[in-house]
Amino acid sequence: MTDSYDLIVIGAGIIGLSCAYHWKLDHPDAKILVLEKADRAASGDTSKSVGAVRNTFTSEVNFLLANSSIDFYSHVQRDLKFDLDLQLVGYLWLLTEKQHEIFSALEKSMPGKGIGFKMWGKEDLQDMIGRSSLTLDPNDAEAKRMRLEGISMGVQGVKCGTIGPELVAEFYKKELERLGVKILFNTKATSLILEPAKSLGLPGEPLIWQDKKIKGVRTGRGEMFAKTTLVAVGRWSNQLLDGLGIDSHIKTKKRQVFQVDSPEIVSLLHTQGFNEHGLLHFTILPQGGVYIRPARTAKGFWVGAADDLGRPFAFEENPQPEIDYFNFSILPILSRYFPRFSSQRPGKMWAGEYDINTFDANPCIFEKNGLIVVAGLSGSGIMKADSTGRIASALIDRKKHATLYGGMKMKVSRVGISEREVDPERFII
Amino acid sequence: MTDSYDLIVIGAGIIGLSCAYHWKLDHPDAKILVLEKADRAASGDTSKSVGAVRNTFTSEVNFLLANSSIDFYSHVQRDLKFDLDLQLVGYLWLLTEKQHEIFSALEKSMPGKGIGFKMWGKEDLQDMIGRSSLTLDPNDAEAKRMRLEGISMGVQGVKCGTIGPELVAEFYKKELERLGVKILFNTKATSLILEPAKSLGLPGEPLIWQDKKIKGVRTGRGEMFAKTTLVAVGRWSNQLLDGLGIDSHIKTKKRQVFQVDSPEIVSLLHTQGFNEHGLLHFTILPQGGVYIRPARTAKGFWVGAADDLGRPFAFEENPQPEIDYFNFSILPILSRYFPRFSSQRPGKMWAGEYDINTFDANPCIFEKNGLIVVAGLSGSGIMKADSTGRIASALIDRKKHATLYGGMKMKVSRVGISEREVDPERFII
Repeated sequence: MTDSYDLIVIGAGIIGLSCAYHWKLDHPDAKILVLEKADRAASGDTSKSVGAVRNTFTSEVNFLLANSSIDFYSHVQRDLKFDLDLQLVGYLWLLTEKQHEIFSALEKSMPGKGIGFKMWGKEDLQDMIGRSSLTLDPNDAEAKRMRLEGISMGVQGVKCGTIGPELVAEFYKKELERLGVKILFNTKATSLILEPAKSLGLPGEPLIWQDKKIKGVRTGRGEMFAKTTLVAVGRWSNQLLDGLGIDSHIKTKKRQVFQVDSPEIVSLLHTQGFNEHGLLHFTILPQGGVYIRPARTAKGFWVGAADDLGRPFAFEENPQPEIDYFNFSILPILSRYFPRFSSQRPGKMWAGEYDINTFDANPCIFEKNGLIVVAGLSGSGIMKADSTGRIASALIDRKKHATLYGGMKMKVSRVGISEREVDPERFII
Repeated sequence: MTDSYDLIVIGAGIIGLSCAYHWKLDHPDAKILVLEKADRAASGDTSKSVGAVRNTFTSEVNFLLANSSIDFYSHVQRDLKFDLDLQLVGYLWLLTEKQHEIFSALEKSMPGKGIGFKMWGKEDLQDMIGRSSLTLDPNDAEAKRMRLEGISMGVQGVKCGTIGPELVAEFYKKELERLGVKILFNTKATSLILEPAKSLGLPGEPLIWQDKKIKGVRTGRGEMFAKTTLVAVGRWSNQLLDGLGIDSHIKTKKRQVFQVDSPEIVSLLHTQGFNEHGLLHFTILPQGGVYIRPARTAKGFWVGAADDLGRPFAFEENPQPEIDYFNFSILPILSRYFPRFSSQRPGKMWAGEYDINTFDANPCIFEKNGLIVVAGLSGSGIMKADSTGRIASALIDRKKHATLYGGMKMKVSRVGISEREVDPERFII
């Protein structure tokens, strides 16, 4: 067999690249192959991400995964001088009176871990963002019909901000090249090779009474074999795993991004005083999960929303954004609080799909008969990519603990299946 | 609106019938409609079940759900004189030396709850089943090639046995008729009706900023509305729920049953001495999850296996049994331990699909915006149907606890999603 490797990683998105990178670091002589169906890396959902990062979580698993990854990205940009477009502009939650109460209860549990917050009162917000730019108490007929509530305060998460997803992927890819790891593009994994540990040449093998192992992957270019095969294909996970009866524990859901880049709102982008970058935060409105993400290079904002009930679980090869969604679901909320948006139409728009672990919205990283599955990043793939790669690497080596960037250790089984121990997230507003 | 109900139950399988029955008992005046796509009740996977019941679980949830349902079925048959073909013939696990050790550790945790066991030594087993019928130590070339191990003991679960799934369904159906609940056959639920609490007549409603509610169901006969809609469609759950972005938490997997009913094995069926019915137990072999289920009326056994890795998660409208699966996966194991089967071919065979909750193989019973979902019975739908119906009924009424048959109370949220508390099952051999 010529096509035989120590490790095959399926998927050159942000997760697959990070997994390959971290395992290669620990095994400089290992023969690794990364397979990618597209003609370049990180061109799937990685490239559709808005690239937001934050460490403001009450869940220890959420915090460990995100915080250490942010630290690593900071290190890459600061010490290795590789520009990731990382800007810790902060997250700003605009809260109603009711939400303020929820937040107060959570506030105490966070600072001990190094999660910094700043509070902004109504006057602060209006002074800094500008009276014509921010409406604290939308009370026109439309706002009443929509039952929008007034903003009573802003809570800023400090170690939070924005990053360039494709730049992070580019970092890992460059490192892999430097370390001699080959990425094979235009090569789609069509199925996994499950074989009996010892074949007897019987029809229908592997039979139920045989020991079984995943030995590699079938592709458009033929079969490729590895000691360990790792699946990091995000929303394509079920396509590859259902056939073997292995549950990825994910469902897929479309998420859309609308770029609003007219000159009219550039001044809002360059809101001064909140952070050293002189930009508005990644800002979350009190209703519908609507957010605006400062996009400096695009000279505007990326706008989106976290819709839930009514948005189907569906898999589409090529999901498309819906202008009606922007016009009727997002804009009515957005323009009530930020009136400058009221006449805006997106200059660009795109859609990707989340691979959501619907139990706890955290990655599932587990081993099954020689296969490593990394799935369910649930929309936080960029902000957890580095730690996820380290945990997967530890799992390949059957280590009990992974060491995250900064030295914190985490039990690998916590994000597995059978001994899963993900504490529920309580900072959900 | 003429078609408006207090409760619409979608699905007249064993679960839907039990849910409708228990809620109707508590609400004699309520207007309930049961919808069924087929032309009769319990004609889907309920009718494909082998109808095995047992209370031998270490998991408290497993035990409560199964044990109380068995008690209820016993009550129906004994006190209400409704024949369910319930026969507590016992389960018999044939264990290897290694499995014996696993069992010993578990044994202690069970009897306190009223889980009875009997142990059978090698001599007992061979004396009672017969030397020509049971091979304790298969050691021909084939058995060695298959790495089969010898049987060192048998463990009998006492409050375990077989039941007629269609008879149980018939009981609930007759009761519903008596109570005046209508089952509408030949009526397929095509989708659920999700609407804003207050419609504003805008395109694309419900929009993300609107309060939403499931108000009923679309069918081939038109829309039907209800205060509460309950989905009990087993493996069809995702078809109905994915469209709304509600996760049923199930995957579907084919299970096959082969009826072996030749005169040659009837004497094995009528093995005396193990139970009052003069029948062999529901007997589980030490490898591959292969089992034989005494089927007195069929004058033979129903044979199956619990295959896992390699058996796809797949949904088929009409799953078919595979004779090769019987010949190459089941028969080689079965005929080594029970040589009478070696020349047998199935007289009948059929297939259904499990709706498996892949996290803990227990039902998910939860509410979401006016919808009640009951799914994930994971192959134990018959043995947990009664308790499941009681829990769903309590949930419709927003009660915190359900009272199971026999008076035990169970927190409804234990089998929900957000506060799920299903202790893992350790009696897995």
